[in-house]
Amino acid sequence: MKITRTQNILAAALVGALVFITTIAQAADPLASWNDGKAKHSIIEFVGKVTEESSLDFVPVAERIAVFDNDGTLWPEQPMYFQAFFIFDRIKQLAPQHPEWKTKEPFSSVLKGDLKSAIAGGEHALIEMAMATHAGTTTEEFEKIVTDWITTAKHPKTGRLFTEMVYQPMLEVLTYLRANGFKTYIVSGGGIEFMRPWAERVYGIPPEQIIGSSIKTKFELRDGKPVLVRLPQMNFVDDKAGKPVGIQMHIGRRPIAAFGNSDGDLQMLQWTAAGKGARFCLYVHHTDAEREWAYDRTSSIGRLNKGLDEAKAKGWKVVDMKKDWKLVFPFQKSE
Amino acid sequence: MKITRTQNILAAALVGALVFITTIAQAADPLASWNDGKAKHSIIEFVGKVTEESSLDFVPVAERIAVFDNDGTLWPEQPMYFQAFFIFDRIKQLAPQHPEWKTKEPFSSVLKGDLKSAIAGGEHALIEMAMATHAGTTTEEFEKIVTDWITTAKHPKTGRLFTEMVYQPMLEVLTYLRANGFKTYIVSGGGIEFMRPWAERVYGIPPEQIIGSSIKTKFELRDGKPVLVRLPQMNFVDDKAGKPVGIQMHIGRRPIAAFGNSDGDLQMLQWTAAGKGARFCLYVHHTDAEREWAYDRTSSIGRLNKGLDEAKAKGWKVVDMKKDWKLVFPFQKSE
Repeated sequence: MKITRTQNILAAALVGALVFITTIAQAADPLASWNDGKAKHSIIEFVGKVTEESSLDFVPVAERIAVFDNDGTLWPEQPMYFQAFFIFDRIKQLAPQHPEWKTKEPFSSVLKGDLKSAIAGGEHALIEMAMATHAGTTTEEFEKIVTDWITTAKHPKTGRLFTEMVYQPMLEVLTYLRANGFKTYIVSGGGIEFMRPWAERVYGIPPEQIIGSSIKTKFELRDGKPVLVRLPQMNFVDDKAGKPVGIQMHIGRRPIAAFGNSDGDLQMLQWTAAGKGARFCLYVHHTDAEREWAYDRTSSIGRLNKGLDEAKAKGWKVVDMKKDWKLVFPFQKSE
Repeated sequence: MKITRTQNILAAALVGALVFITTIAQAADPLASWNDGKAKHSIIEFVGKVTEESSLDFVPVAERIAVFDNDGTLWPEQPMYFQAFFIFDRIKQLAPQHPEWKTKEPFSSVLKGDLKSAIAGGEHALIEMAMATHAGTTTEEFEKIVTDWITTAKHPKTGRLFTEMVYQPMLEVLTYLRANGFKTYIVSGGGIEFMRPWAERVYGIPPEQIIGSSIKTKFELRDGKPVLVRLPQMNFVDDKAGKPVGIQMHIGRRPIAAFGNSDGDLQMLQWTAAGKGARFCLYVHHTDAEREWAYDRTSSIGRLNKGLDEAKAKGWKVVDMKKDWKLVFPFQKSE
């Protein structure tokens, strides 16, 4: 076949158009840090079907609620919960006012720098330390304490600010969902007032969309000025079976999408999955010992055991961090 | 002066334009049911100064939080709280399963139709009846019970659905604030799950922006299906000093505007007023015995005593329902 000059021009134009379209498509990829694969495709497919008005699975904007665990889902939880580092720093800071801590566990271990022993008491020890270090201030004072800490404290392994260690692929999911009319919430076992001071800046999630564990507060007039005083009494533990309770209390509507990483998120995923219509449940599986950490069924922090089985049985998505994510942290972009 | 044909045409055109502009302005009055006066002007002035970017009092959209009490502020609370009528109807409905109620106060008074005696025990009696009638179902079952009741039960005086008895001028304030970037919240002593099923349709306020009193709930798997069971234990009383606590728990940000009608709202108004920058606090004063009810300093329901003094001392706005509102309820438009 003889190729004419016209055909040549046409071919060149087509190639040009193709390059142009590909470039646009790449530039506009809302999940650019995700490798092509089942996990990425499942997110895009779900968002497509609940937002396309002609779809049988269409969901009105008001009902597009997506909930995210924080520790291990949006940022790491190794070698221990980031809030535990905050608690340890607070204990060191407050120690001069608490001479009894020198001989009282778990405080004495913290002061000796033996963090493993300090958290050996499990959830009970953490709650005791949290109350001792999170109470006794007004809400405004506590917000400042958290802000000062989060903008200066560094992670022991990476030497980075904790807020630099958020998962880039999950930031993209948050942005992608919001661009499609979703309201994104954090539903975390962590302290609600520990997350609020920085979550809007880091995740784009405002204070009113943060659900977490809390201590009680009390309204008082101090010299005529109203304050909320933080008390050393637990108010609510937003973990495991507490997560659906927290969701109902704060949102009053069942989410249509839920993202977690541990057995502590299982009830939240069950609650989300059991609603009518299209639902999306996803577990982040920590499989990347090199770029992050690898742990699951036997880890004392962020154990994913029952959840992994249930995800398989129910067809929930499981993200293989090592395989599915092009990069883990934003700072790896420039490395 | 001799009037030319051109001047005539010009004058006619000007008059026409003026009529047109006036019509537009009237049609666009966002607070059409408010009489011209201090109260109406103060609302418009406040919204103007916090939304005008060049204003010293400008507030970014994310921080434009407005909180509204419900009973007595958005709908009436006479001859008793509307939720009390729901409680009484539930007691009658559940009585066959509770033979002991025949001789047990306050239930026996309700069953005899003696509602005055039933509520003579005050808050304690109301909470006892609320727990007995609001617990024992799942959250989904309770939502259906409330929806069925609110769409059929009638007010004893007006014979209207309770949701027809919302204050038209306050509906206009809600719409006006939202049109100016505000997030509107209900912060009520009433039950959070009693308000959520209808507040979106009636007030345009979604479930996640309702704060109220609550009983505890518990997550359970029933035949593998997750449910939240409502328990007969108080979780939170969102009244008086509880209101700022509820606001902090749910919103995590201090409101810039607060609307109430009783001493039960005083701490909410104090908390709102004490923030930095422009603030707006308003009390609805029930002064209209003819179109609604007239009560304040000595009323057992919705008492406004300390609040009235503090409003005067601090320059908060006080709405005189009789003088400031052209009409009270939407159905009066067509009467």
